[in-house]
Amino acid sequence: MSSNSLGKIFTFTTWGESHGKAIGCVVDGVPSKIPLKEEDIQSYLNKRRPGQSKFTTQRKEGDNVEILSGVFEGLTTGHPISLIIKNEDQRSKDYSDIKDIFRPGHADYTYWAKYGIHDYRGGGRSSARETAMRVAAGAIARKVIENKLKKNILIKGALVQIGKSKINYNNWNKDFIDQNDFFCPDMDVIPEWEKMILEARNNGSSLGAIIEIRCNGIPAGLGEPIYDKLDANLAKAMMSINAVKGVEIGSGFKSVSILGEENVDEIRIENSKPKFLSNNSGGIMGGISTGQEIIVRFCVKPTSSILTSRKTIDKYMNEVEISTKGRHDPCVGIRAVPVGEAMMATTLADHCLYLL
Amino acid sequence: MSSNSLGKIFTFTTWGESHGKAIGCVVDGVPSKIPLKEEDIQSYLNKRRPGQSKFTTQRKEGDNVEILSGVFEGLTTGHPISLIIKNEDQRSKDYSDIKDIFRPGHADYTYWAKYGIHDYRGGGRSSARETAMRVAAGAIARKVIENKLKKNILIKGALVQIGKSKINYNNWNKDFIDQNDFFCPDMDVIPEWEKMILEARNNGSSLGAIIEIRCNGIPAGLGEPIYDKLDANLAKAMMSINAVKGVEIGSGFKSVSILGEENVDEIRIENSKPKFLSNNSGGIMGGISTGQEIIVRFCVKPTSSILTSRKTIDKYMNEVEISTKGRHDPCVGIRAVPVGEAMMATTLADHCLYLL
Amino acid sequence: MSSNSLGKIFTFTTWGESHGKAIGCVVDGVPSKIPLKEEDIQSYLNKRRPGQSKFTTQRKEGDNVEILSGVFEGLTTGHPISLIIKNEDQRSKDYSDIKDIFRPGHADYTYWAKYGIHDYRGGGRSSARETAMRVAAGAIARKVIENKLKKNILIKGALVQIGKSKINYNNWNKDFIDQNDFFCPDMDVIPEWEKMILEARNNGSSLGAIIEIRCNGIPAGLGEPIYDKLDANLAKAMMSINAVKGVEIGSGFKSVSILGEENVDEIRIENSKPKFLSNNSGGIMGGISTGQEIIVRFCVKPTSSILTSRKTIDKYMNEVEISTKGRHDPCVGIRAVPVGEAMMATTLADHCLYLL
Amino acid sequence: MSSNSLGKIFTFTTWGESHGKAIGCVVDGVPSKIPLKEEDIQSYLNKRRPGQSKFTTQRKEGDNVEILSGVFEGLTTGHPISLIIKNEDQRSKDYSDIKDIFRPGHADYTYWAKYGIHDYRGGGRSSARETAMRVAAGAIARKVIENKLKKNILIKGALVQIGKSKINYNNWNKDFIDQNDFFCPDMDVIPEWEKMILEARNNGSSLGAIIEIRCNGIPAGLGEPIYDKLDANLAKAMMSINAVKGVEIGSGFKSVSILGEENVDEIRIENSKPKFLSNNSGGIMGGISTGQEIIVRFCVKPTSSILTSRKTIDKYMNEVEISTKGRHDPCVGIRAVPVGEAMMATTLADHCLYLL
Repeated sequence: MSSNSLGKIFTFTTWGESHGKAIGCVVDGVPSKIPLKEEDIQSYLNKRRPGQSKFTTQRKEGDNVEILSGVFEGLTTGHPISLIIKNEDQRSKDYSDIKDIFRPGHADYTYWAKYGIHDYRGGGRSSARETAMRVAAGAIARKVIENKLKKNILIKGALVQIGKSKINYNNWNKDFIDQNDFFCPDMDVIPEWEKMILEARNNGSSLGAIIEIRCNGIPAGLGEPIYDKLDANLAKAMMSINAVKGVEIGSGFKSVSILGEENVDEIRIENSKPKFLSNNSGGIMGGISTGQEIIVRFCVKPTSSILTSRKTIDKYMNEVEISTKGRHDPCVGIRAVPVGEAMMATTLADHCLYLL
Repeated sequence: MSSNSLGKIFTFTTWGESHGKAIGCVVDGVPSKIPLKEEDIQSYLNKRRPGQSKFTTQRKEGDNVEILSGVFEGLTTGHPISLIIKNEDQRSKDYSDIKDIFRPGHADYTYWAKYGIHDYRGGGRSSARETAMRVAAGAIARKVIENKLKKNILIKGALVQIGKSKINYNNWNKDFIDQNDFFCPDMDVIPEWEKMILEARNNGSSLGAIIEIRCNGIPAGLGEPIYDKLDANLAKAMMSINAVKGVEIGSGFKSVSILGEENVDEIRIENSKPKFLSNNSGGIMGGISTGQEIIVRFCVKPTSSILTSRKTIDKYMNEVEISTKGRHDPCVGIRAVPVGEAMMATTLADHCLYLL
Repeated sequence: MSSNSLGKIFTFTTWGESHGKAIGCVVDGVPSKIPLKEEDIQSYLNKRRPGQSKFTTQRKEGDNVEILSGVFEGLTTGHPISLIIKNEDQRSKDYSDIKDIFRPGHADYTYWAKYGIHDYRGGGRSSARETAMRVAAGAIARKVIENKLKKNILIKGALVQIGKSKINYNNWNKDFIDQNDFFCPDMDVIPEWEKMILEARNNGSSLGAIIEIRCNGIPAGLGEPIYDKLDANLAKAMMSINAVKGVEIGSGFKSVSILGEENVDEIRIENSKPKFLSNNSGGIMGGISTGQEIIVRFCVKPTSSILTSRKTIDKYMNEVEISTKGRHDPCVGIRAVPVGEAMMATTLADHCLYLL
Repeated sequence: MSSNSLGKIFTFTTWGESHGKAIGCVVDGVPSKIPLKEEDIQSYLNKRRPGQSKFTTQRKEGDNVEILSGVFEGLTTGHPISLIIKNEDQRSKDYSDIKDIFRPGHADYTYWAKYGIHDYRGGGRSSARETAMRVAAGAIARKVIENKLKKNILIKGALVQIGKSKINYNNWNKDFIDQNDFFCPDMDVIPEWEKMILEARNNGSSLGAIIEIRCNGIPAGLGEPIYDKLDANLAKAMMSINAVKGVEIGSGFKSVSILGEENVDEIRIENSKPKFLSNNSGGIMGGISTGQEIIVRFCVKPTSSILTSRKTIDKYMNEVEISTKGRHDPCVGIRAVPVGEAMMATTLADHCLYLL
């Protein structure tokens, strides 16, 4: 079986396969009377859409979203919002040569082991195509948060590492993020990254990446201990994205190398309110938001869709070799940036609705 | 509000405060006719129990668990199993000096911001004391897994890093883990760790740690994509443990620095079955177990309960300073090992019960 | 907000408004490798479809269902099955005269009170049009049950009372149910019912009905006490159908007038198996199926869409009167028969999947 | 397995067997800062407690509830509230004669068929003893509702029928309900009921009953369509009570015999607010509260614990006969009154917390 819904009050359920007729989702738990139109969602989908940059996949998808329910005269009704994107790239490509082969490093074998079905058309349900609907749900989630908190919030992701090359945090320029093909906040690292990507493409190889998502404007109090802590749910949300193998909050793994007295976020008063002197906690303490910036990082492994031939097996337990044909996407992590933003948004929206 | 249950079919709900009358949990969804007695649970609690080693906290808790329901004539009945541990260390210590102060680096401020209540007795519900009940639930979970899979499985955690000092993975000795106070698999690193811990204790400081949990014996097929992927649920489970700030599966963050062709776990056939040539995936692909060893790592930040004075505030928005009095626990990560094992166990038990 | 999913393992989520672009549902938790095609679902939709008989509503809806995901090469994949029915009767009827008025006896006022939105096009989300998707989910549920139990089961509903006119249970003819416009098992009562319906139509009035759903073939053991008892979940499922105001199991309310010794279903042995001498329990004891026929009855109130003018109010708190224009459906309970069957099917499918 | 939690935001989980060490529950989702002490809960438990009247069971249980967590300095903390009642009537009665026999009309056979375990000590988990914890959870639920709605509400149950003898609704006297052993609102029917009960007791027989629960003070807007409608959740809650076989809302099954024009609750304006001219809907329309009185009725079958010998079987598939020894409870429905009130309270509390 499977489980395709996330969230407890603000919930969304996605459906659809990479090369099926369409993909879609149903977003439930949205309060009524929030203005919503297709363009609000489309703008985020455009950010994720493949085929836009020479640095990402060339699959052509218009990714045009259509709202089928839950909006009446421009306002949400409080009822489920059904979204659909018809697959354009559904052409019956010839899969006969890889039909029975499990691509290594993909979910082909585990899906087959579990379900006894092998949807060889781009991985079927396990394809990252599903993440388009996360981005769509995330667009609605942003509106829910702002409606509930009665203020603007900013959720913004950035690429902070490709392969072994990290950004210099001192160069962080928020505005620059949307002005380059990498969602990179550090102008200086761009030439190196361009070179790395093109090299990986030419070598038929691929590179991993680290994405950092930040959210400003969330007040103290979001998160439901002990088992719906905000950080725990963010970790789940991020880890559920394809190819993600690690998640950390605030200083994360780095905090291990810091002494306790350095790691403590000390508190002072400013304008009669608590002011933290540092943010090693990443804005979450005891599973509850502190009012500081929320900071989550996750890593995306280098894709296994590469031109280099790799050893694997087929359904009949024969040993074979396989390599991806044609152009490939040397750093899938780039496109995970808007997806990570969306997961932050849906998680926060769900927790917002718990506030009494 | 709060949310104190975890799991969908195998579920457990914990309750209780650090210095309340008792702590407990209700474990539901356990199949009937599994032999279960208090000693089965007690042995794991003993492993976690404080006050056992000079390297951990000196709080004295017998942690004697009692089964109140769900077992009849030595067998589980299929009905909820209620467990209770009476708090022995409930003495009315004098909290008057810290009654109104939010300990920085703890959940004191966020709990107060959210609930408007400040349980100054050891953090109340936010205390790591709650993790005793996770360990108890984990003991039952292990039995559920073995009952369902009809085979033995081994879930074992180890400490792999304290502060900046990492073990040498080449020295990994599974049997040594239970023979030292650190749950450390590498004999050679022990002298250094002992020195570090004692130094931190003497300095009133504290150290972070990284814990690695491994599970052998899980077949391919556990995990429910897209939103109850095995890795996503493990990430949530681990991140919900007190002081955890990062989680990774298999090669985790390290996979970012590896090229795609190196990171792919190639597959061959051995004895008519798939055999992976590496395990960068940590035993999980596409959110489903591959049949390989499942490997999860998480980090525990250095505790903020230190003797060094730190800046903070009180409920009346006064700026104050605070430090922990008396003996403290310089590396709380050590005691997180059995807790991590338990979270692995409860997560796997829940996913096991989905298998048709 | 709203909550549009039902079930815990076999779950379905419906969406769509009466006069929106389409209605649909996402069915999740379906095991893989079950043969499924659109016709399997369509046949049940046809049974419910309006406009087929002179005794029911004349709204014309082809109700052609399309499967958008979750089926690959004719087999379920284990992934979410997305179904859609495009609304044909979406024409922009002129609602200007009733736009601001709350139809009494409908959900218009409560939806407005809760959501602040009044979808005047046929009630929007509160319309019984939503029940088409229940029937679709029910068709898939039947397949899940048979797949899981490895045997055929029969779920069949019948109309047993219209207004004050009850069937004679001695005349129960299972085969006759599908041969008349009322899903009536008693041939003798048909002339009276025809007369009653036509009279109600001519008077612009309406009649209530009682529906009985029976299921044969379910073994002992379905149901999860204490709070997912089979009867409790059936009660919820039936009560969630539009216009239903009562539900009973087995002898139901009649059992109140029976002495304990008469109401007990005594047990004997037949072919080495338990055989109950009566079925007052309706096949459920202690919330768990007994292996006998499962029997549930529910009542549907007479529709409030009538030609008689009734007192009500509008959004501006003016007192007004309203009556339905054109042809109306004098006994909506008839069309609730396939819906009740579907709710029985989805509930049983969910409980089936709990069986270890 | 089993499922022992109810509710989505306000949740409670019960545990414990009839003759185990204790019974208890964990109530989660309670907002913080609500005053709560044991006496608040005890007063409702006393109402349900057996052994108080010559008309109910003579089992002696003090039913003294203890709060183990979730309350600090007299206020709820927002964290789980653990309640426990130690079983006093735990004496090792000699069950050897009925040890292997399934009492007909009880859950003995179905529990055994499902779990393979037969807890012969008073039915174990299937005993109505569990309902004590529902009453306890209900006491907390009442406080949650009043806290959330910022007003008093009144939830009150009454017995309206025993066997074939109904009350006269014209005699309804709210204050009289607490002044008699039957929770009866009609003084005139008391002599007849007393006679019926004593006769049933003398004959070793038993009688069914109908209970009506009313709630005043709930505003319009509670309930989450389509699958968490208020009436659907009330139906589930009531049907989950032991021995309940039917539930109805407002006019319920009676509405079938009424014409549509009579059944419509017409609306007028009074003091600028909607005023309904009748309440056939029982205060719920389209699954959402209307602001009128909420009215639910359910029936309790005559208990199968009777002195008359009945045919049944044992675990070894032998045909045997059984009868209850000693005093029995001729009308268990009486004690279901406070339980029904509690289920109304917990259901309303859960829905209250959805209100934005």
